[in-house]
Amino acid sequence: MKFNNHNVYISPSATLGKNVKVGDNTSILDNVVIGDNTIICNNCIIGEPLNDFYYSENYNNPETIIGSDSLIRSHTIIYCGNIIGNNFSTGHRVTIREKMKIGNHCRIGTLSDLQGFSVIGDYCWLHSNVHIGQQSKIGNYVFIYPFTVFTNDPHPPSNICIGPTVDDYTQIAVGVVLLPGVKLGKHVLVGAQSVVGKDIADYQLVVGNPAKPVKDVRELISRETGKSHYPWPYNFDRGMPWKDIGLDKWQQMNNK
Amino acid sequence: MKFNNHNVYISPSATLGKNVKVGDNTSILDNVVIGDNTIICNNCIIGEPLNDFYYSENYNNPETIIGSDSLIRSHTIIYCGNIIGNNFSTGHRVTIREKMKIGNHCRIGTLSDLQGFSVIGDYCWLHSNVHIGQQSKIGNYVFIYPFTVFTNDPHPPSNICIGPTVDDYTQIAVGVVLLPGVKLGKHVLVGAQSVVGKDIADYQLVVGNPAKPVKDVRELISRETGKSHYPWPYNFDRGMPWKDIGLDKWQQMNNK
Amino acid sequence: MKFNNHNVYISPSATLGKNVKVGDNTSILDNVVIGDNTIICNNCIIGEPLNDFYYSENYNNPETIIGSDSLIRSHTIIYCGNIIGNNFSTGHRVTIREKMKIGNHCRIGTLSDLQGFSVIGDYCWLHSNVHIGQQSKIGNYVFIYPFTVFTNDPHPPSNICIGPTVDDYTQIAVGVVLLPGVKLGKHVLVGAQSVVGKDIADYQLVVGNPAKPVKDVRELISRETGKSHYPWPYNFDRGMPWKDIGLDKWQQMNNK
Repeated sequence: MKFNNHNVYISPSATLGKNVKVGDNTSILDNVVIGDNTIICNNCIIGEPLNDFYYSENYNNPETIIGSDSLIRSHTIIYCGNIIGNNFSTGHRVTIREKMKIGNHCRIGTLSDLQGFSVIGDYCWLHSNVHIGQQSKIGNYVFIYPFTVFTNDPHPPSNICIGPTVDDYTQIAVGVVLLPGVKLGKHVLVGAQSVVGKDIADYQLVVGNPAKPVKDVRELISRETGKSHYPWPYNFDRGMPWKDIGLDKWQQMNNK
Repeated sequence: MKFNNHNVYISPSATLGKNVKVGDNTSILDNVVIGDNTIICNNCIIGEPLNDFYYSENYNNPETIIGSDSLIRSHTIIYCGNIIGNNFSTGHRVTIREKMKIGNHCRIGTLSDLQGFSVIGDYCWLHSNVHIGQQSKIGNYVFIYPFTVFTNDPHPPSNICIGPTVDDYTQIAVGVVLLPGVKLGKHVLVGAQSVVGKDIADYQLVVGNPAKPVKDVRELISRETGKSHYPWPYNFDRGMPWKDIGLDKWQQMNNK
Repeated sequence: MKFNNHNVYISPSATLGKNVKVGDNTSILDNVVIGDNTIICNNCIIGEPLNDFYYSENYNNPETIIGSDSLIRSHTIIYCGNIIGNNFSTGHRVTIREKMKIGNHCRIGTLSDLQGFSVIGDYCWLHSNVHIGQQSKIGNYVFIYPFTVFTNDPHPPSNICIGPTVDDYTQIAVGVVLLPGVKLGKHVLVGAQSVVGKDIADYQLVVGNPAKPVKDVRELISRETGKSHYPWPYNFDRGMPWKDIGLDKWQQMNNK
């Protein structure tokens, strides 16, 4: 009921893998490459051109790559010049500007706004309405919750652009601001509405404005279980590569 | 000028009431039921299918009900499996995921993102860009202002999902975070950018991160009138069922 | 690749200047006037009608004016009754409700939500996801960063509507709330996630909830340069009218 090949535009220079489905009212523009079994839903624009397109006669749209087995939900805009891995999924109305490099198994939630020129590793989940400024670096297994912002201009407005860096397994709760250039270690947990202006060591729980470390996450006791939930990969494996294996065995198997 | 029956898709299994208007570029998908006199504007998707649709051969779209006399503004996405009352209205680009139960006379503002599996009573107004996580419960006459988030995971990421509960007449100002499982009483007023982690009794004004009760709302003096504005239903009746009757008489008439 | 004249609707009463381009799936509705060389991208609605359109037989769409040399990116909705200057640009999915007056050389970022009935001067840049409530007044050369909200109801819900006023050159960082009726002077700098409830004098840096002045911005020392970045027009001129001239000379030339 959604794939009626109705009002679809696919550029002659786009390359679609086997079994790719394209929703109604979607445009797939020049030099887009889409992997096998990927689904692009209704009203999307894939390969949105750069500004130059509007003003230059000799504009050539940079190549855009979306991996296999991905699901791009409706009204999503993905600019040209992005390289995105396999098993990627988006919510609705996601905007991804140019020159992102996004790994495998990532999920980008409804209304999230990625400003381009950033790197995201594997198995990252960005929930709804996350804003990632340019020059951000996000590791693997990082989860980011709604209305969180990665900033990059230390003296607005300036021409300096230094984005935050977030290491593996870190969790950033709702409404957080990461200030320009901050570095968060592994397994950090940032509390709701914190403003993080200083680098944070591994395993720290940080809260407040300005955010301060208050505890090692491994000391946090869950009201539900009476034990610590952290490091979370021991207690959560849905969609993760250590599913049904356990973190320790998976790490051994992969020499991590 | 908006209803030209241009590029409209209506599923054969959809049921439209009398005098329903459907905007250009809108799709009304399988098993959607729309009440009399309802207007669906341009570029909407009503009855958006569940994930299974993309991967299962035998997928059957759950029934979606939108009541009568409603106005769904452009670019709104309403998933299948929702039951929505009469006199409903949305702003633009609203996303409502599956299995919400929404009462009569509710308004959901532009860009709001309802994650499904939640209950909203009658006469609730959610302004722009409100994010309601799964398993939330919202009473009647509750107003929620922009960039407020209802969260539900006490130890992110976990498989626990316990949403907040908000009772009748409560007002939640801009940029507020309700932490998982909190309960707000009746006539509560939550100040801008508060983070609410503890249950709040009726009539409390709460502010801060973490939010603390600071006053009974009935003691708040309005700069404009020199009297208390609260309980607000004595001083605001636009669109409310006690309009032109007054709260007391309306309550008597309705045994409340 | 984007201007295929595919599924475009242009009202007979719309007036398009020379060399205007209109993207696929875009509707330009009654009484819209668009200046020369302006580009309207895909899936936009320009001249979105007021509520009365849906319920009144004699509805006449108020005139909408968008100046010359502007770029409206995809999925943007601009209501009727707006007067917008030249060299205007929007990101994607911007919503601009009725009766705004917006000057020349303004930029409104992706997902920003302007609620109408407000005034914005020249050379203002609103980044992504800025929410401007009704009855706001914004001067010239004002920059506003993501998830900032201009509020207007001092006792929610009431029928009072008094928006904030922001004077020239002021910078408002991410996640800020301006409370109803506050006045910010010239060259103010508001820190991330501040809640501003009191009027702020020229050149103040304000931070916190509630926001308090902490310093004169001219005393802030840049880590990068060892000197103050403020007043910023001495150190930033991209897209500004003093570009390549310098602020002082430009002010002399313009008697400012």
